[in-house]
Amino acid sequence: MNHTALLDRTSTARLQDLGQQLRVDSVRASAAANSGHPTSSMSAADLMAVLLARHFRYDFTDPHAAGNDHLIFSKGHASPLLYAMYRAAGAITDHELLSYRRRGSRLEGHPTPRLSWVDVATGSLGLGLPVGVGLALAGRFLDQLPYRVWVLCGDSELAEGSVWEAFEHAAYHGLDHLTVIVDVNRLGQRGPTRHGWDTAAYARRMAAFGWHTIEIDGHDVTEIDRAYAEAGQTSGRPTVILARTRKGQGVAAVEDAEGAHGKPLPDPEEAIRELGGPRSARVEVKPPPAQPQRPHAFPAGQLHLPEYERGSLVATRDAFGEALAALGAARADVVVLDGEVSDSTRTQYFADAYPGRFFQFYIAEQQMTAAAIGIQARGWTPYLATFGAFLTRAHDFLRMAAVSRASLRVAGSHAGVSIGRDGPSQMALEDLAVFRAIHGSTVLYPCDANQAARLTAAVADRQGVSYLRLTRGGTPVIYEAGEEFPVGGSRVLRSSADDQVTIVAAGITVHEALSAASQLAARGVSARVIDVYSVKPIDAATLRQAARDTGRIVTVEDHWAEGGLGSAVLEVFADGTDEALPIVRTLAVREMPGSAAPEDQLADAGIDSRAIISAALTLARA
Amino acid sequence: MNHTALLDRTSTARLQDLGQQLRVDSVRASAAANSGHPTSSMSAADLMAVLLARHFRYDFTDPHAAGNDHLIFSKGHASPLLYAMYRAAGAITDHELLSYRRRGSRLEGHPTPRLSWVDVATGSLGLGLPVGVGLALAGRFLDQLPYRVWVLCGDSELAEGSVWEAFEHAAYHGLDHLTVIVDVNRLGQRGPTRHGWDTAAYARRMAAFGWHTIEIDGHDVTEIDRAYAEAGQTSGRPTVILARTRKGQGVAAVEDAEGAHGKPLPDPEEAIRELGGPRSARVEVKPPPAQPQRPHAFPAGQLHLPEYERGSLVATRDAFGEALAALGAARADVVVLDGEVSDSTRTQYFADAYPGRFFQFYIAEQQMTAAAIGIQARGWTPYLATFGAFLTRAHDFLRMAAVSRASLRVAGSHAGVSIGRDGPSQMALEDLAVFRAIHGSTVLYPCDANQAARLTAAVADRQGVSYLRLTRGGTPVIYEAGEEFPVGGSRVLRSSADDQVTIVAAGITVHEALSAASQLAARGVSARVIDVYSVKPIDAATLRQAARDTGRIVTVEDHWAEGGLGSAVLEVFADGTDEALPIVRTLAVREMPGSAAPEDQLADAGIDSRAIISAALTLARA
Repeated sequence: MNHTALLDRTSTARLQDLGQQLRVDSVRASAAANSGHPTSSMSAADLMAVLLARHFRYDFTDPHAAGNDHLIFSKGHASPLLYAMYRAAGAITDHELLSYRRRGSRLEGHPTPRLSWVDVATGSLGLGLPVGVGLALAGRFLDQLPYRVWVLCGDSELAEGSVWEAFEHAAYHGLDHLTVIVDVNRLGQRGPTRHGWDTAAYARRMAAFGWHTIEIDGHDVTEIDRAYAEAGQTSGRPTVILARTRKGQGVAAVEDAEGAHGKPLPDPEEAIRELGGPRSARVEVKPPPAQPQRPHAFPAGQLHLPEYERGSLVATRDAFGEALAALGAARADVVVLDGEVSDSTRTQYFADAYPGRFFQFYIAEQQMTAAAIGIQARGWTPYLATFGAFLTRAHDFLRMAAVSRASLRVAGSHAGVSIGRDGPSQMALEDLAVFRAIHGSTVLYPCDANQAARLTAAVADRQGVSYLRLTRGGTPVIYEAGEEFPVGGSRVLRSSADDQVTIVAAGITVHEALSAASQLAARGVSARVIDVYSVKPIDAATLRQAARDTGRIVTVEDHWAEGGLGSAVLEVFADGTDEALPIVRTLAVREMPGSAAPEDQLADAGIDSRAIISAALTLARA
Repeated sequence: MNHTALLDRTSTARLQDLGQQLRVDSVRASAAANSGHPTSSMSAADLMAVLLARHFRYDFTDPHAAGNDHLIFSKGHASPLLYAMYRAAGAITDHELLSYRRRGSRLEGHPTPRLSWVDVATGSLGLGLPVGVGLALAGRFLDQLPYRVWVLCGDSELAEGSVWEAFEHAAYHGLDHLTVIVDVNRLGQRGPTRHGWDTAAYARRMAAFGWHTIEIDGHDVTEIDRAYAEAGQTSGRPTVILARTRKGQGVAAVEDAEGAHGKPLPDPEEAIRELGGPRSARVEVKPPPAQPQRPHAFPAGQLHLPEYERGSLVATRDAFGEALAALGAARADVVVLDGEVSDSTRTQYFADAYPGRFFQFYIAEQQMTAAAIGIQARGWTPYLATFGAFLTRAHDFLRMAAVSRASLRVAGSHAGVSIGRDGPSQMALEDLAVFRAIHGSTVLYPCDANQAARLTAAVADRQGVSYLRLTRGGTPVIYEAGEEFPVGGSRVLRSSADDQVTIVAAGITVHEALSAASQLAARGVSARVIDVYSVKPIDAATLRQAARDTGRIVTVEDHWAEGGLGSAVLEVFADGTDEALPIVRTLAVREMPGSAAPEDQLADAGIDSRAIISAALTLARA
């Protein structure tokens, strides 16, 4: 098919008819659910009809085929339209279409990868485009395959900064296989958008960022077809198609009307009549090119994790960086993403050794995180790293990664007050709470370099979002190289039959706990010390045993008092068994820190050995 | 002084000399601390010298004077430069300058409002400009005063999407009293920026967004002075000055050098010699206009909170919206910020009644939150609202609000699985964990409309970040209008001398708990029910009493199992006492939800009355 040729009259009519079918099915699905966003689906129906019938290359019987195009509904609330496309493509039955938003149905209110044709969950606006950038980066630099990435955006979501991080990044890399289709229906949820139908206002901005821009009537299938063809022929830069559309197009009662967002149509039967009645056209979606398309593979070798000598002082961030480089040598699937702090997080070691698998996002944590979601959707194994504090900038996308069932490995360096003089803006003090409350997450917090190296490798094959909490300053190496640290485990560092109190620590506070236990021993108090390097899942059995043995637990963490290590330990004892809670005292950061030397920060926060001793003595005597 | 006139030779020399003084003092402060960012300070020294000496209008003896200009160091790591300016202005002594980054010093590594001349804390890049937009909005629409807002940005931070939310928003409102100065020193922390010294690349983007752009040599005081004058004369749109500079300017050892970021100079003595030695010029900063400048005031009246009839079904988001409108009538200082969901959060009631104090940010949660930080810095009382889930998009700025000692009232609607069919992308399931782990925060979660109205009013005068968690669907009104709900309190809804178990709930689960308790009573089990509407601070005394009385506690929350209500209750019992430690079982959301009706969601998550009954029976029999 020659995309540059104008459509003939038959094709035009067929495409218009398909657009109406997609509208009808969006209305039907929403009516069946008595819930959903039919009007937001109807505005984009013609855009998607032409894409599906003439430009999208996809094998619905093999959603993981390497050559498949990718389609992301960044405006995830238009899910009825997506599901209507699946029906038209023969991927789902009409019966399943009408299960939309019902309990147990995989046709959720917003698309998720419970459907195997959905790469990533959307529904938080501003996410789909930066994820699309990740997929396009994977296509160009990792898979080295010519698949195209199509992203359908709403106009409202162009207000999100994450979208502009993506516009910048995609143009910088000349991602010409990425095409963004903006459904400019001029109406947000609550009323008119800022720029209404002024597609030129958007085009000016995007062109300034380096994109090829095309403005069209989004209900004219000929213009739409021409725009997709032009996008396909544009090289060296990505294309955005700004399509003027009408929300609720085709049904007078809701067309271009305020107050019709996110609601089933008032009279679906009448609307379906107005749209020409139900249809069941089947679209033969073109498969990707027939020749076997194997994604590019990088060379791989043996894993030789770095080893550190007991007693030496090494920062866990250093060990993380060195282990990551070792993983890069051993595994061809590992890729690393940086937010312009590779010198601090030590991902620079990987960057220097494997520049082809290292991605620099500059200071754009949302784009970095979204790209990792896109990259893992193509089967790669991404690690991303920045200061733990700045991961809060990407919290929404980390939350959505869980909805996407995405597997990401996230490293947050410069955790806690122990960073010292830079002050609170640079200190991650909420990251344990953040990552623990991400569904299906793993949260690890190494205290020494050998442990950090092991845990860095351990998360490579872990499902879900894994978090590694890293410390800025050097800490003593207390474990031998080669020791194992299974996820979900812990290490009992001091223990005896007459322990009177248990000190539970992780990361930097393990060393304070060991120092405290030595001093307590000198004062005749025997303290057990547990290193809970696996904060989630946590080693409940060992903690329960300690509670039985000592009855008294002091937890100590370089983190706010809410939701972190102390909470994780307490939650172990909240499973409703007939054992009451042990006596627990949580030591944590409770006042806003300022600037000071690391040791002064620990003292001022009341999480140093002295504070532990004081708490342990009080408990042991209770 | 005529700003359009060229500077005479004496003025030029004096300004150049002041720039050198600011450099010397940046070097001295960093050397004294053996820590800090002198090179990032030196690039912007001439820019700040000209601003301080000729354009900034500020009364250092009265930092809260309404007419004062505002200066935000968005590149907060250049704090040595800011403190050098304070010394030059006579605000701090040389002795204090050299306390930089020392324990106890208010000259922290990144500026905070511990210094009364600092409006907001910075240090998380990409924050200062959107906060500046908030101050400029306050100046134009609330205070209605002609003060200017000056924001010093680094070039690296232009990669942050939050900055582009701000560029869009400021141009949309024609904030011509806002001037952004970008210190384009071409070097980020780790190496060159994406666009290097290509100021035209930035100018194209900013002009496309509607800004007046000026490109200058950032070390030429005449060009700098002319640019500030031009900014002052530009009306109808904000101005950005893109200044090409050299990092470490003036000291050959570090000038324009990679690897010199964030470190004191290798040889400070030699550097100071090279810069011409220490100086002590004192700048007479021009005060704001002499005539008394009173900020504009809106009319105010009496507070008549909405009242709801017991037994009726009302959503707490409705009560929030109506209470907010009532507050608007009573208090002239209350302003409301929306992220394009005012129909859902019900802030539309306020918008309709008080459009002059309502700010629409479209879907830009970071700009919305940052603007609230800026607006409260001028003494106003902002409430901001969106879906609780989407507040994760602004998490970094909420974190920084605490570092800023800012007082914000944040409402998150559509909390939990109980929203029903929209699915997990729209459900706030981590918001209690997020807001509890913000330093100094208040976390409230009303279960009925009368309580929601009271709590909405209660946070108006609360210090710090206050969070109101709101429910989408209608819940039964169980409290009388006019009842008081003090922050830090709770309500015991069922209680008797022979209670065998305590059910602790908040928000939507209070109703499930009441239903469970009735059914338990029918089965001969007496259950106490506590409504902990104040999740932080939590009513420890009442919970302790329940533990003493019943020994068994079931917590139930529409939130992930980590860091939320259950953790808050457990933390009460972690103060190291051995008194009355209960058996606890936490009911919470533990599997990823899909789409379903609200009641099915509660059942599937195991947080409905049936699940509570089952847990309570197990515990009561234990």
